[in-house]
Amino acid sequence: MAETVLALLDPAGGEPTLADPTAPVLRADDFGVVRGESVFETMRIAGGRARFVDAHLARLARSAQRLAIDLPPGWDRLAEVAAGAYAQPDGVLRLTCSKGPPGGAPVGFALASEIPAETIRGREQGVRAITLTLGVTAGVRATAPWLLGGVKATSYAINMATLRHAQAEGVEDAIWVSTDGEVLEAPTSTVAWVKDGRLVTPPAGEVALLPGTTLDVVLGLCPAPYEVRRGTVAELAEADEVLLLSSVRGVAPVTELDGRQLGTGPLTAQLRESFEAALSYS
Amino acid sequence: MAETVLALLDPAGGEPTLADPTAPVLRADDFGVVRGESVFETMRIAGGRARFVDAHLARLARSAQRLAIDLPPGWDRLAEVAAGAYAQPDGVLRLTCSKGPPGGAPVGFALASEIPAETIRGREQGVRAITLTLGVTAGVRATAPWLLGGVKATSYAINMATLRHAQAEGVEDAIWVSTDGEVLEAPTSTVAWVKDGRLVTPPAGEVALLPGTTLDVVLGLCPAPYEVRRGTVAELAEADEVLLLSSVRGVAPVTELDGRQLGTGPLTAQLRESFEAALSYS
Repeated sequence: MAETVLALLDPAGGEPTLADPTAPVLRADDFGVVRGESVFETMRIAGGRARFVDAHLARLARSAQRLAIDLPPGWDRLAEVAAGAYAQPDGVLRLTCSKGPPGGAPVGFALASEIPAETIRGREQGVRAITLTLGVTAGVRATAPWLLGGVKATSYAINMATLRHAQAEGVEDAIWVSTDGEVLEAPTSTVAWVKDGRLVTPPAGEVALLPGTTLDVVLGLCPAPYEVRRGTVAELAEADEVLLLSSVRGVAPVTELDGRQLGTGPLTAQLRESFEAALSYS
Repeated sequence: MAETVLALLDPAGGEPTLADPTAPVLRADDFGVVRGESVFETMRIAGGRARFVDAHLARLARSAQRLAIDLPPGWDRLAEVAAGAYAQPDGVLRLTCSKGPPGGAPVGFALASEIPAETIRGREQGVRAITLTLGVTAGVRATAPWLLGGVKATSYAINMATLRHAQAEGVEDAIWVSTDGEVLEAPTSTVAWVKDGRLVTPPAGEVALLPGTTLDVVLGLCPAPYEVRRGTVAELAEADEVLLLSSVRGVAPVTELDGRQLGTGPLTAQLRESFEAALSYS
């Protein structure tokens, strides 16, 4: 098993330094610990480097602003330092910035570790999924910024509970839908589907979804026409292909949705291959 | 300023021990840190003891079950140990149990610290509030357990963002309402109101709200008739009194709601006095 690497910022400033990944890093009164006021990004390490770092750093900075977290000096060097010290070519890089204790400085750290086997399996063999409600209307989060649509915070208990619910139902993943019947996002991925040769994915800004960094790359590589627009659960139920996009798993085919067999479609397979290839030259 | 006290469980077992409250306690890969999978309770310390401990422990245990957290041995002794070592008669006791790192044990700790001045001020002088949408219909969370209605997890970024939004609007607190016009709860309190001499509060089980430990005490002390039933935003807008209930602030009058002046009503003042008195003999 590959050794986990932890890079940590000294609150006094300076370059990130390596630390024992099993040593505690957050205080009991850190707002990230007590109130989930902490932002994060998960990146793929490929060829020994963290990939698409700029896109992830930009998104982390936007999330931090929404949570009123002042990113600590050197936060934008953490990913590079942790990935650089990680001994394996492939891995997961998780960058976190927590708000810190009352009156104290924010705490930034990055962990590099092995890609879980189930993540690779999801990419290669696909995942079965069910649709589950997120309880909200499609439009409400864009007009209610305090609901933090589109923000990647560590307040992720609902995301994890959704995945546990899906697993208890015998599948590996879930797709959140709105109470008024629109497709939103997945607990740890962006959702897209293919119908009549066109790729469709919901608009992150308009519906206040997390803007997908993997989606951006995939749209740039897409050999077919694509539409970024709102879509209904009924459309999803009649899609030719459904796919989930995320940094470490990459492009994962949804091989079964709500009991309907889909397999791995041709455009999905092509985008998966193109994305994996893009990692080698990004 | 009173000295903060931290009580911590040794993963190897045994009684909680006191530790330096400024020393880190959670690892970078703890599921509480990376995914907000951590549960907590906030209790009042009065007369040198944490109060209504059994009700808080029971609620923490229910929250932990919903998050698939196995509470560590000794978790139910943490509050008592931290409050016992705290030198002041009055304080805040925050008990947290985090899921722990992958394959590791959950981490339990309790912090005793001073009650913030603004909390006392809110109790004594009341708070101004606005209603804000929680984005959900009133009924959905009770039928979608993965949305974690009624669970007190540290995935609290939305709660904090809601309070920041209210403060940016010039008031101190907020009351969440549903998209279909029902009164739900507040980011850190239970909501109740008074109309024609009757106290009304929404049913925690039916609407999947956090069951209020302070509400339970207050209902037991209430000299007026009361109704635990769903209520509309329109009703709240015509209430004679509005109050917010939470462990440390206690019974806080809502003196202004959505710009309408309410002051501190007579039943609210009486319940606030009765609750404070109950703390001395509980």
